[in-house]
This record gives sequence, C-alpha cells and structure tokens, in this order.
Amino acid sequence: MRFGERLAQRVVAVGSPCCVGLDPHLSRVPGLTEGASREEAAEAVRAFCVGVIDAVHDVVPAVKPQLAFFEQLGSPGVAALEAVVQAAKDAGMIVIVDAKRGDIGSTAEAYARAFLDDDGPIGGDAITLSPYLGPESLDPFLARTSVGKGLFLLVRTSNPGAGPWQRDSGLAEQAARWIAGANVLSEELGSVGAVIGATLPDEAPHWRARLPRAWFLVPGYGAQGAGPDEVRPHFLPGGLGALITSSRGVLFGREGREGGDWPTAVRQRAIELARAAREVSGLG
Amino acid sequence: MRFGERLAQRVVAVGSPCCVGLDPHLSRVPGLTEGASREEAAEAVRAFCVGVIDAVHDVVPAVKPQLAFFEQLGSPGVAALEAVVQAAKDAGMIVIVDAKRGDIGSTAEAYARAFLDDDGPIGGDAITLSPYLGPESLDPFLARTSVGKGLFLLVRTSNPGAGPWQRDSGLAEQAARWIAGANVLSEELGSVGAVIGATLPDEAPHWRARLPRAWFLVPGYGAQGAGPDEVRPHFLPGGLGALITSSRGVLFGREGREGGDWPTAVRQRAIELARAAREVSGLG
Repeated sequence: MRFGERLAQRVVAVGSPCCVGLDPHLSRVPGLTEGASREEAAEAVRAFCVGVIDAVHDVVPAVKPQLAFFEQLGSPGVAALEAVVQAAKDAGMIVIVDAKRGDIGSTAEAYARAFLDDDGPIGGDAITLSPYLGPESLDPFLARTSVGKGLFLLVRTSNPGAGPWQRDSGLAEQAARWIAGANVLSEELGSVGAVIGATLPDEAPHWRARLPRAWFLVPGYGAQGAGPDEVRPHFLPGGLGALITSSRGVLFGREGREGGDWPTAVRQRAIELARAAREVSGLG
Repeated sequence: MRFGERLAQRVVAVGSPCCVGLDPHLSRVPGLTEGASREEAAEAVRAFCVGVIDAVHDVVPAVKPQLAFFEQLGSPGVAALEAVVQAAKDAGMIVIVDAKRGDIGSTAEAYARAFLDDDGPIGGDAITLSPYLGPESLDPFLARTSVGKGLFLLVRTSNPGAGPWQRDSGLAEQAARWIAGANVLSEELGSVGAVIGATLPDEAPHWRARLPRAWFLVPGYGAQGAGPDEVRPHFLPGGLGALITSSRGVLFGREGREGGDWPTAVRQRAIELARAAREVSGLG
C-alpha cells in the first residue's frame, strides 16, 4: 500500500491526525544522571522513548524520531534509535525519520538505504528531506514510494529567520512545485508530503491550495507556541491532510527532568494532543 | 587558533590545497564480501578508511568523511566513523565532516555537539551545512568558531538541477551574504567557508569576488568531471582559499572492488591530486 494511503488509514483507525516527536533532551530524560557515559545515556534514551511509544501507540498514529538527539551519543545513540524505531513499528505506529537530509547521487542513495529500506538499519516509513540540493537529491527517495515509503520535503519552517531564506527566495515555491508533480498521479493523498510549520497561519491556506494531494507534517504545536487556530488551515476538508506534531509538549512536563510516574503523564498529554488535533481537523 | 588559519597552516605545511573525500562505497571497499553482516561491513570500511589515511596523510592536508556511507551501516557504521575520524586527527589531518545538516534550535545544537565538540563522539574540525532552515540553524555552529571549529555552508553544488533551486532562487546569494557577514572580522581567511562545486567555472569568479575571506570546499574534481581549468577561478591570489576535493578519484581505481596493493595505488592517486591542486592553485 502507498504511504499516503497507509498514513490515512492509520490516522482514521486511531481517530486523530497527530504525531509525537521523539526529541530526547538529555537534560530531561528520566533516569539519566550527570556524568553518565554515552552508553548509559543511550540506554536511558532508549528506555524513555520505548516507554513513550508504549504509552501513546493506541492514541497517536505516528512518531517522529529526531536523529540529532540520537547522533549526539555516537554509535550507542544510533543503536538506541534502531531499537526505538523497531519498537514503534512493532506497536503498529508510522515512523517518520526526522533527518532533514539532502545530498546527491550515491550519497543520497546511501541515506535512503540508511533510513528507509526494510533491510537497512532503521527501516522507517518516511523521512524528512531538505530541498537545497535540487531535484536529483530527492530521486532516490521518490523511487522508494513505489514500495510504500514516503517523504516530507521541507517547504516552510516556523523560525523567524526562515521567511526570507525560504519564501522570499522562491525556493519554497519550487519545492512545492516538485511535490505537486510527484503526487500528480495520486487520486487521494500521495506519498510525497511537505513540512509546513504550525505558526504560519497566514501562509498555510496558500500551501494547502497549492498542494491538495500532499500530507503536511506540521511541527511546532504546543510547546513551540501554535494553538488550534494556527493549524486549522493546514487541513483538507474531512480532517485529513495534516499531521499535528508535538515533541516537548508531550514528552516533558513543565520543568526539569522527568521522574515519578512519567508514562502516565506522557499518555495524558498525548491524549490531550490527540483530542485537540481531532477537534481542529474536523475528522469525522 | 581559528579554523581558517589552522587550515591555511596545514595546507602550506603539506604543500597542496586539496582534500580526500572518504566515500566508502560498499561495492568497492577491499575485503568486503557479499552477504557480510553490518558489523563485518563496518569493519571493512573502517580498515579501508584508516588505510587511506595512513597512505595520504603526509601529502593531503584534509579528509572529508561522507556520513551517509557510514550511517547506512547503522550503529557499527557510526562506530567505524568515530575510529576513522580519530585516526585522521592522530595523523594531523584536518577533518571536515560532510553532514550537510540543517535544523533549528536544540536540534541544531545537538548536531553541533554530535560532530564538532571535542568531548562528543566525532569531534571533527569542521562540518558542511545546508542553508535552507535559515540563519538560526547556523548559529550553534558559528558559536563554535570561537574554539577553533569551522563550517562550510552549501552555496552552489554541481548537479545540473541545482542551478534553478540554488542560484535562480537567490538563496545561494543569501547564503553567501551570511558567510561574508560571519567572516567580516577576520583579517585573513575566516572560519566560515562555502561549498562551491568544481564544475561551475562560469560562476566561480562571482563567488570568489563575493567572498574574499572564505575558504571554498570544492567537490567534484576528478571522477565527477572537473579538471584544472574549471577549478582555477576558485583560488585566491597566492594559492590559498580553495580546497580541491576528490573522493572516488583517489579511493578507487577504474572498476570494481579494490584489491592487491591498494594502499600504494591510493597514495599514488593522492600524490597526483596534490600535484594537480598545487599547480592549479599557484601555491608558492
């Protein structure tokens, strides 16, 4: 089954168009002590992320592991990532690898193998990509849509400095044109999505109209400041087409390192995210 | 010492402005057999790259490991990368981590820790970065120039599809403006460089004039098609300012998997690269 369709089915089955970002900040992961080795830190990160997956898998359709937080721990961190992705897949979740990679030729092919191929080390369902290297950098990932994989191309991010570099330059528009072309044969939502930040309510209607067959991955909900009104324009009529993503807002409480019965607290925050996303989407 | 100055010293000491890209293609790495496990493949990759470093460290000032080729082997591949970078540093080489990362906030900070910090897993001297996420995405790396680290921002790559997405959009120009601003306080070559592909002789004079204090990392020499005439305009008067980079052209012979006395062949090809780079640069 194509990725776009698979994601739609999972969203409908779970009943909410949302995603939890797995950004395990070392200063907040439970059980991680000062002076821990990289191996110890990676084990704490693995245990925390698997605990999060256990706590949210039946109320949230997708997780988005952020590679930087694993790569900063070197090879033990990457081993933890491998275990976390496997746990999410075993729990039936869609795994979006937040890599924001962009390179060409044999390098792009190696990244596709690294993060998407089922016989590779990670085997995610989809990956985030950066457009700067041009269309050739996207082809190895596009080729894998034929075996059920997906990609989300960065179009617009929410950070204040991104506007001039993405929108004013016109590169966001070129990236969107490429996405529209890649989805042109899809009858419903295609396998090629776009990252459209949550805090861009003035722009979201433009991108929604421009890309009627693209899933939007919408980071920046909750902790980073966007509320329901900001993300409403990201959805298609019927409640599909956008995946509201929250990371810190679900993983962590207000301050400091998590402790106590954190799985129950994570689950409660995930249920709140899922309810908010369902309500704003209008999903039936 | 600042990165730009450190690189200049190493180039002068070795006598050539060049760099060997470590792109260990699995189909060509010596001693790697069909059906090898990821652990076995990672060990072959590690042994090959360390052998390359042994063979070239006194004739080439810098190496550029391409992360994708290590990441495709999962955590054993990243462990191999850690060992390869350590070997290059022990041999006195400058290590440019070819990551092409680009992300914001705590994620960018985590990537900087992952690839540059001396107490992190990799501890490279410099990193390649992509500009699409805007200036905020570069700040954590810029902060590390004060402790001797460097960065190379993607400005123009050689692949045919990149022209419209980079140059015509104007984002390449915005990235160059950011680089010029970051180097403004440097009297000589600064710590913030630019990636300018080798096969762009019509554009290189523009970027050279635009960025008189920036090191250019110049991939695409040799196997990818550029010769001396194409890379001459990348240099400053006196022979500094550009690092001619070749990967496959040095690592591998014409066809198939390397074997026999490959270290001697690698060294011979590195000497040829170094001679060509010295001649075209006009380095004294």
